[in-house]
Amino acid sequence: MSIKAYAAQAAESPLSSFSITRRDPLPNDVLIDILYCGVCHSDLHQARNEWGNTIYPCVPGHEILGRVAKVGTAVTRFKEGDLAAVGCMVDSCRTCPACQKGLEQYCETGGTVFTYNGPDKILGGVTFGGYSENIVVDEAFVLKVSEKVKPEELPGVAPLLCAGITTYSPMRHWKVGPGQKVGIVGLGGLGHMGVKFAHAFGAQVVLFTTSPGKAEDARRLGADEVVVSKDPDAMAAQARSFDFILDCVSAQHDLNAYLQLLKRDGTLVLVGAPEHPLPIAAFNLLMPRRNLAGSGIGGIPETQEMLDFCAERGITCDVEMIGIQDVETAYARLLKSDVRYRFVIDMATLKS
Amino acid sequence: MSIKAYAAQAAESPLSSFSITRRDPLPNDVLIDILYCGVCHSDLHQARNEWGNTIYPCVPGHEILGRVAKVGTAVTRFKEGDLAAVGCMVDSCRTCPACQKGLEQYCETGGTVFTYNGPDKILGGVTFGGYSENIVVDEAFVLKVSEKVKPEELPGVAPLLCAGITTYSPMRHWKVGPGQKVGIVGLGGLGHMGVKFAHAFGAQVVLFTTSPGKAEDARRLGADEVVVSKDPDAMAAQARSFDFILDCVSAQHDLNAYLQLLKRDGTLVLVGAPEHPLPIAAFNLLMPRRNLAGSGIGGIPETQEMLDFCAERGITCDVEMIGIQDVETAYARLLKSDVRYRFVIDMATLKS
Repeated sequence: MSIKAYAAQAAESPLSSFSITRRDPLPNDVLIDILYCGVCHSDLHQARNEWGNTIYPCVPGHEILGRVAKVGTAVTRFKEGDLAAVGCMVDSCRTCPACQKGLEQYCETGGTVFTYNGPDKILGGVTFGGYSENIVVDEAFVLKVSEKVKPEELPGVAPLLCAGITTYSPMRHWKVGPGQKVGIVGLGGLGHMGVKFAHAFGAQVVLFTTSPGKAEDARRLGADEVVVSKDPDAMAAQARSFDFILDCVSAQHDLNAYLQLLKRDGTLVLVGAPEHPLPIAAFNLLMPRRNLAGSGIGGIPETQEMLDFCAERGITCDVEMIGIQDVETAYARLLKSDVRYRFVIDMATLKS
Repeated sequence: MSIKAYAAQAAESPLSSFSITRRDPLPNDVLIDILYCGVCHSDLHQARNEWGNTIYPCVPGHEILGRVAKVGTAVTRFKEGDLAAVGCMVDSCRTCPACQKGLEQYCETGGTVFTYNGPDKILGGVTFGGYSENIVVDEAFVLKVSEKVKPEELPGVAPLLCAGITTYSPMRHWKVGPGQKVGIVGLGGLGHMGVKFAHAFGAQVVLFTTSPGKAEDARRLGADEVVVSKDPDAMAAQARSFDFILDCVSAQHDLNAYLQLLKRDGTLVLVGAPEHPLPIAAFNLLMPRRNLAGSGIGGIPETQEMLDFCAERGITCDVEMIGIQDVETAYARLLKSDVRYRFVIDMATLKS
């Protein structure tokens, strides 16, 4: 079937209306009419070929929320009309130890198929993301969304599929919880969810930001304290006091300043990927014994767990809704970190 | 009491004979006549003021093995004639959570007193290390050495106090054991003990070296495989296969090459401290979720555990014995990595 989408035709071209083909649902497939799609910084990187691997035309979008329009004959978990969501992946090898453990993002055969710009194994070419009318995905990679979520909250659910799981997963893996002091570095799309989750998990939450103007908002989101990272005295006052720090910044910055804030056996986890290597002074890891780690999105079972947790606790992303026609304006604002805290496209605007 | 020692009088001066004062044993003190003292690269750094904090005269040496000559009135664990050892520390605050946990090297009040160039709280000035006739240390910081160790093996016990515990501690902390593939980077004083311990713990051991000539020796020490790290194909063949890598190199080198060899959830631990910061590409930590950490020596209880483990298993360091008069020659050879694998000073030569 031919459907409407928004695509970049080249690194220099603004995204514009474009027709793409979706497969008819195979027995295990779910066809989802897309209601909302979040705008992730990765969308911009990929559309502009900033990672050097973009195949055009490119349809971004991996924070997808919609309703099931049709299911294949073998689908058991979804029926027409159900809320459904799709995140960063639509397939993987499903047989390696990582996939068997539900960590499909770390598929050991390199079989992870990303939602856009991945190899489309059925139609050939590349996968097309959520800046589109609908999407067809094997039910094994489709997430359920509780009907408890109120309609007006649905736009804020879409970015949970990337910004949410990317911050939720490391905090679960490193067991963030009550009695811990947890730092979140950066208050953007990821960071604002980091604050909400760390607070929800019962930790004492400190937000680090370069923008003093974000302090009030950070407290509203769940931070107990806000530290302006450009203030050396404020940073020094936090030395050796953190159990865990989640670094959500994609720009170049000094990790040593944050390593020094960790207690013995504390962990600093990167979820952003700055373009250039980050210099680490070995002594900051040796004394006292500290950890630096990274984490990439999250697997399908944990993404479902996160969506259920959020539905139960009433947690959503703070979003600004835009029309698909405004996506380039949104990208320009994204580059200035001028969004509180995630743009979400109302996909109804694709039809207008 | 005034005793013989070897001291550096300035960064540029070769070490030479010098008299120092030791306190008379206090009630909790043990006076140890030193038989052997290992030569650690830290001795050289400190003697030459390469860390910028040396107070002269400086008597290095923190891999100390000897026999108890006298004990204070309240000493319970040692008696005259016992074998005894002293490592990198002679005191700490003893009350903070780290000290209470037996991790005195990470003392949270900054109270760790290093064996040389630390604040001598009793006599004033700085502590003097093991390049000396004897040493007086509170029994809480004195280690027991099994009488099972044969006299000819005693020189190889001395470097366990730093090279041994520095490699033993992180492998215990990160639970190295059977079924794991473990890499050791560099075959020097630390690395050769890393190979021995990883082998003793039942892991599959791969040694990484820039010197193909060390392969045979590495296998003798317990390595199952040797990879020449300058060979890109040999390195690529090891990608994503390690549970744990212990990096024992103090020179600048590329950590990214080793991070890429870790499996998901694998850990690269630094025990060497290169002078300049090491650039880390964030993506090597993110995908698949990997850890970079550091570890500094080990606490007193674990040092005792390590010495007991070594006595039980017949593990010692491979050493080259020297006279104290040859210490500058040894330093020069150390700078060329020309030692297999640790110099140990026969302290009897101090009297000659």
